[in-house]
Amino acid sequence: MFKKIQSLLIGKALKTTELAGEKFNVIWGLPILSSDAISSVAYASEEILLVLVPVLGMYAYGSMIEIAIAISALLFVLIFSYRQIIDNYPHGGGSYIVASENIGKIPGLVAASSLMIDYVLTVAVSTCAGSAAITSAIPALLQHKALIAILLIGIITLGNLRGMKESARVFGTPTYLFILSIVIMIITGIFKVVILKEIPVQLYPLQQSTQDLTLLLFLKAFSSGCTALTGIEAVSDGIPNFKSPAQRNAKIVLAMLAGIVFIIFGGLSYLSTMYKAVPGQDITVIAQIAIQVFGQNSFMFFAVQATTAIILVLAANTAFSDLPLLLSILAKDGYVPRQLGSRGTRLSFSKGIIVLFLTSSFLVYIVDGSQHMLLSLYAVGVFISFTLSQFGMFKKWMKSKEGNWRHKAFINGLGATVTAATCIIIGIEKFAHGAWIVLICIPVIVTIMLRIRRHYNKVRDNLKIDLHSNELIIKEARTKHVIVPVQTINKSFIKSLNYALTMGENIEVYHVSTNEEETKKLIKKYGELGIAAQLIIENAPYRNINDKLVAYVQEKHKQLKKNEVITIVMPQFIIHKWWHQTLHNQTSLFLRRSILKMRNVVIVIVPYIINE
Amino acid sequence: MFKKIQSLLIGKALKTTELAGEKFNVIWGLPILSSDAISSVAYASEEILLVLVPVLGMYAYGSMIEIAIAISALLFVLIFSYRQIIDNYPHGGGSYIVASENIGKIPGLVAASSLMIDYVLTVAVSTCAGSAAITSAIPALLQHKALIAILLIGIITLGNLRGMKESARVFGTPTYLFILSIVIMIITGIFKVVILKEIPVQLYPLQQSTQDLTLLLFLKAFSSGCTALTGIEAVSDGIPNFKSPAQRNAKIVLAMLAGIVFIIFGGLSYLSTMYKAVPGQDITVIAQIAIQVFGQNSFMFFAVQATTAIILVLAANTAFSDLPLLLSILAKDGYVPRQLGSRGTRLSFSKGIIVLFLTSSFLVYIVDGSQHMLLSLYAVGVFISFTLSQFGMFKKWMKSKEGNWRHKAFINGLGATVTAATCIIIGIEKFAHGAWIVLICIPVIVTIMLRIRRHYNKVRDNLKIDLHSNELIIKEARTKHVIVPVQTINKSFIKSLNYALTMGENIEVYHVSTNEEETKKLIKKYGELGIAAQLIIENAPYRNINDKLVAYVQEKHKQLKKNEVITIVMPQFIIHKWWHQTLHNQTSLFLRRSILKMRNVVIVIVPYIINE
Repeated sequence: MFKKIQSLLIGKALKTTELAGEKFNVIWGLPILSSDAISSVAYASEEILLVLVPVLGMYAYGSMIEIAIAISALLFVLIFSYRQIIDNYPHGGGSYIVASENIGKIPGLVAASSLMIDYVLTVAVSTCAGSAAITSAIPALLQHKALIAILLIGIITLGNLRGMKESARVFGTPTYLFILSIVIMIITGIFKVVILKEIPVQLYPLQQSTQDLTLLLFLKAFSSGCTALTGIEAVSDGIPNFKSPAQRNAKIVLAMLAGIVFIIFGGLSYLSTMYKAVPGQDITVIAQIAIQVFGQNSFMFFAVQATTAIILVLAANTAFSDLPLLLSILAKDGYVPRQLGSRGTRLSFSKGIIVLFLTSSFLVYIVDGSQHMLLSLYAVGVFISFTLSQFGMFKKWMKSKEGNWRHKAFINGLGATVTAATCIIIGIEKFAHGAWIVLICIPVIVTIMLRIRRHYNKVRDNLKIDLHSNELIIKEARTKHVIVPVQTINKSFIKSLNYALTMGENIEVYHVSTNEEETKKLIKKYGELGIAAQLIIENAPYRNINDKLVAYVQEKHKQLKKNEVITIVMPQFIIHKWWHQTLHNQTSLFLRRSILKMRNVVIVIVPYIINE
Repeated sequence: MFKKIQSLLIGKALKTTELAGEKFNVIWGLPILSSDAISSVAYASEEILLVLVPVLGMYAYGSMIEIAIAISALLFVLIFSYRQIIDNYPHGGGSYIVASENIGKIPGLVAASSLMIDYVLTVAVSTCAGSAAITSAIPALLQHKALIAILLIGIITLGNLRGMKESARVFGTPTYLFILSIVIMIITGIFKVVILKEIPVQLYPLQQSTQDLTLLLFLKAFSSGCTALTGIEAVSDGIPNFKSPAQRNAKIVLAMLAGIVFIIFGGLSYLSTMYKAVPGQDITVIAQIAIQVFGQNSFMFFAVQATTAIILVLAANTAFSDLPLLLSILAKDGYVPRQLGSRGTRLSFSKGIIVLFLTSSFLVYIVDGSQHMLLSLYAVGVFISFTLSQFGMFKKWMKSKEGNWRHKAFINGLGATVTAATCIIIGIEKFAHGAWIVLICIPVIVTIMLRIRRHYNKVRDNLKIDLHSNELIIKEARTKHVIVPVQTINKSFIKSLNYALTMGENIEVYHVSTNEEETKKLIKKYGELGIAAQLIIENAPYRNINDKLVAYVQEKHKQLKKNEVITIVMPQFIIHKWWHQTLHNQTSLFLRRSILKMRNVVIVIVPYIINE
C-alpha cells in the first residue's frame, strides 16, 4: 500500500548502476545549480537602493554604480577562487571539505553548519518571495501566503524525490526564460534612453538630499548588495552531480554563471539609475523598471514578473540539489545520522530531501510566509562559509608553495579578507535583526555533529574484531539455560514450549502468580501435559509480573559461567489489524527492553498468528 | 526515574491483599458516591425556573412547587427501584448488568455506553461549573477558565490514582459542609419569612403574564428539573467499593441520599418561590437566595458559594469512582480493552482513571470551559440508562413471578414508564441542542464494543487447547534451519554466529550485496574465520536489503516439512541514550514484523551492548 503510493508519487525504483545516467550536462547543470545565484540578483539592486535612497535621495543613483562595480569585482574574485577549488576538489563538498582539510575539523564543521542553515533559509526565503509574487497577482490568495509557500516546497520536494535528471528538465527552462526576458528588458531599456533619447517617467517622487556618500554608508550598501553573490558556492558543491568530465563542466558552468550574474546585475543596476526606480514600494524595483520600459499592461511586463516569480521558486531547488549531497558527505564522515548517506529508491538522497522539506516548511510556517524576517539571517552564514573556504585555500597555497602559488594565494587571500570584512559588517549591522540566531545555531549544530561523531566512533571501537584472535569462534557447545514464561497454558505457550524443547535439556517454565485460584488450575493443566521441564512459581502481591521475571533472570545472569547464555523463549501474537493490537497488553515490549540489557541473555520470539 | 516520579505523585505500591482496607464505610461512602446527585440539586431549581419564568412570569412560582413534588415522587420511585437492584445485584455494575442480564446483550451495551458518556460529561460539566465559580470570585482568571477546569480534573485524577480511602477523606468533608450550609440557609430563610414575617426584597424585576401552565410546559419544566436526579445510579454502581456488609451499607447510603436530595431540593424550590429568585442572571438562583437570606457580603453567603463551588468539583469525583469500575466490569466481559480491567500499583483502576482524565479534559478544551453547551447532552444518557435498568428489573419480576413480584414489578414498571417518557421528552426537546451527538455516539460505542468482544473471542478460540490431544508436545527433535544475516563482520555478528552455532548444524550465513568491493572484503574476512556454515550471497541492485532477506526466508518457508521451523538469528544493538538510537537504522523493526508474519519462523535476538 505504502509502496504503491510511493511509486505513484516518485516513480519506480532505480538500480544503483543507473546512477551515471542521472547527472547534469552543462546545459541543464547551469539552470539547476545557478538559479539560486541568478535569482538573488532579482533583489540585490533593490537592497542596495534601500540603503542609499533614504539617505542620499537623488544622489543615490550615482553611488549605485560604484557599489555595483565593487560587488562585480568581488564576484570575479570569488569566481577565480572557486575555479581553483574545483581544480583541487573534484568530489565536491565546497567549503566544508576545503575548510576541514586545510584549516581544521572545527572550522570545517562551522562551514558545514552555516551551509546547512543557508540551504534551509534559501528554500524558505525563495518560496516565500515566490508565494508573494503569486499573491500579488491574485490578491484573493493573500491570506494563504504561507500555505502556498509550503505547497511550493512540497512540489519541489516531490520533483527531487523523483530523481535528478527529470528535475533538471522540469526546472531548467524557466531559468533560461528569466535570463532572456531580463536581457531583453536591459537592451530595450538602454536603447530607448540612449538611441531614442526618451526621458523616463518617474513612478515615485524622490526628495533631494545634500548628504554625501560616507564610507560607512558605502560599506552598508555594499554588504546589502552582497546578497547578489549568494548561491555561487552551489556549483563547486555540486561537482559530483555533473556528467564527466565533471570538473571541466563545472568550471564552464561557473564561468557562464559569472557572465550571467555580471550582465543581469550590472544591467539592472544601470537601468535602475537610468529610470530612477525607488525601493521599498508595493512594486519591486524590477517591476518598476519593466513598467517604465514596456508599459503597465504589456506582455513583456508580465513575462518579466512571471519568470522572476518562477526563478525565485526554482532557487529553492538549488538547495534541494546540494543540501542532501552535503549531508551525505557529512554522513560518510559520521557527523550526521548514517541514514542521510544512503540513496532512496529513485537514487536521490531521499532522507536529506525530506529533512530539508520539513525544516524549511517549519520556518515558513513560523514567519507566516513573510521572508523579510529571514533575510537578516541569510547573508551571515553565506559569508562565513565563503571566508572559511577561501582562507582554507589561502592556507593550502602557503603550505604547499608549489607552482604559481604566490598568484593563487593572493587571489584567495584577497577573497578571504574581503569576505571576512563583509561578514563582520553584516554580523554587526544585522545582529539585532536576527543574525544572532545564526551565531547561536552554528555552535549548537557543531556540538551536535561532534557528539554524533563521538558516538559512531564508540560503536566502531566496540564492534572491531581481531581476526587472528583464537577466542572469536567458541568451539565447545555451551550449557544452555532456557526459560519459558507462562501465564496461561494455551496454544501459543505450547508452541513456544515445543520450540524450547528442541534447544536443550535445561528448561524451566516460569509462572508469576497473582491469583491463587488461577495458579492452581495452571499447575493441574501443566501436570497433564506430562513434560519434564520444571515449573517454577513465584508470587507477585503487587501484580508486577514483568518485574518478577526480570529479577529472576538477573539473578540467574549473575551466576553464569564463562560463555554461558540464558535464552528466554517468548510467544508473540501476530495480529493483522493494527487497532486490534491496542487491545493487547504491550508490556512485552518493555519486558524485552529490560531483558536485553543483560549481556548474556538472548530472546527467542515465537510468533503465534491469530486468524480472524 | 519514571517509577520515582510515579511513587512521589501517587504513593507507594499496594499489595492485592490490601484491597479490603481501601473500601468505603457509610460515613465516607455517602459523600464520595452522592456528591454528583447532591450537586445536581444546585442547578435543578434554576433549570425549572428557566423554563417557567419566561412564559408564566410571577405565576411560575406557584407551578414550581407542583413540579418539585412530581420530581420528588420520581426520586422516591427511583430510590425504591434501586433498593431492589442493590438487593439483587450485590457486585455492582448498575444498569449495564441489569439490562444485559434481563433484557439482552445489546440493551446492556446501550446502557453501558450511555453511562460512559454521562460519566465523562459529569466530569466536564461539573469542573466547568466549578471553574466558573472560581473565576466569578477572581475575575482576573476568567480567560483561563478552561485551563482551571482541566487543572481541577488533574487534581481529582491524582487523588484517585492514590487510591480510594484517601480520596474519601480528602473529598468527603466539603460535601457535608455543603449540606450543612444549605440546610442552615433553608431554616434561616423560612424562619425569617414565616416567624419574623419579613418581606423579601426582590433582586430582579419580573413581568406579569396571563398565560397558564399547560401540560407541555409542565413536562418541559419537569424534564429540565430531572437533572436533580442524575447521579443516583452511582450508589448501586459502586457497591463493590463499600465495606462489608456492602449491600446493607449501600442501601443506607441510598436512603440517606434520598433524604438529603429531598430536603435540599424541596427546601431550595420552596425558598425560590418564597424569595422570587429569577433564573438566567449573572448570579445563580442559589446565590440570589443566599444574598436575600444572609445579606450581600455576609460570611454565610460566601460559605454557601464556596461549598457549592467545591461540591460541583467533587461531583466529578463520583465519575472517577465509578467509570473505572464500569470499565473493569466491561473489560472482564471482553467489551473494552483488557488493560482497563487490571488494578494499578495503588489498587485503583489506574488506566480507566487516565482514560476519563483524557476524555473529559478534551471535552473541556473543546467547549473552552463553558458547560452550557454540554448540559443539553447530559440528561439524555442518564435517562436512557435509568429506563433500561428499570425495564430490566420489570422484566425480571415478570419472568420470575416469585414472592411479592406484583408490587415490585409495579414499582419498576412505573419507574421505567416515567423515565422513558422523560427520556423521549428530553430527546425531542434538546435534539437540536446536542442530544443528537449522544444518539450518534451510543450506537458507535456499542459497535466498537461488539467488535472488541468479537476479536477477543477469536483470540480465545485460536488459543484454546485440547489437553488430551497427542499432538500437543512434539517428541522427536526437529530439523533446524538457522539463518544468520550479515552485512559487516564485526563483534556483534560474531556473537550472533556463536549463538547460532550452538543451535544445530544446518546454518546459513546470508549476505545481501549492494557494493561489490565491500562484498569481496566480506568474503575474504569470512574465509579467515574458518567456519563450516555456508555463506550465501545475493545481489540487491535496488539496495533493498531487507526485502531480499524476507523473500529468501519466504522461499524456504514454503518448502518446510511438517513440524520444521526456520530460525533467524539477529543481533540488536543496545544503546543507553535514547537519542543515540535515532542514529542507527531502525529497519530491523520492520524486518522483524515482516518475518514474524510467517507461521513457522522464529526470531532469535542476540543483544550487543554498546559501551559509551
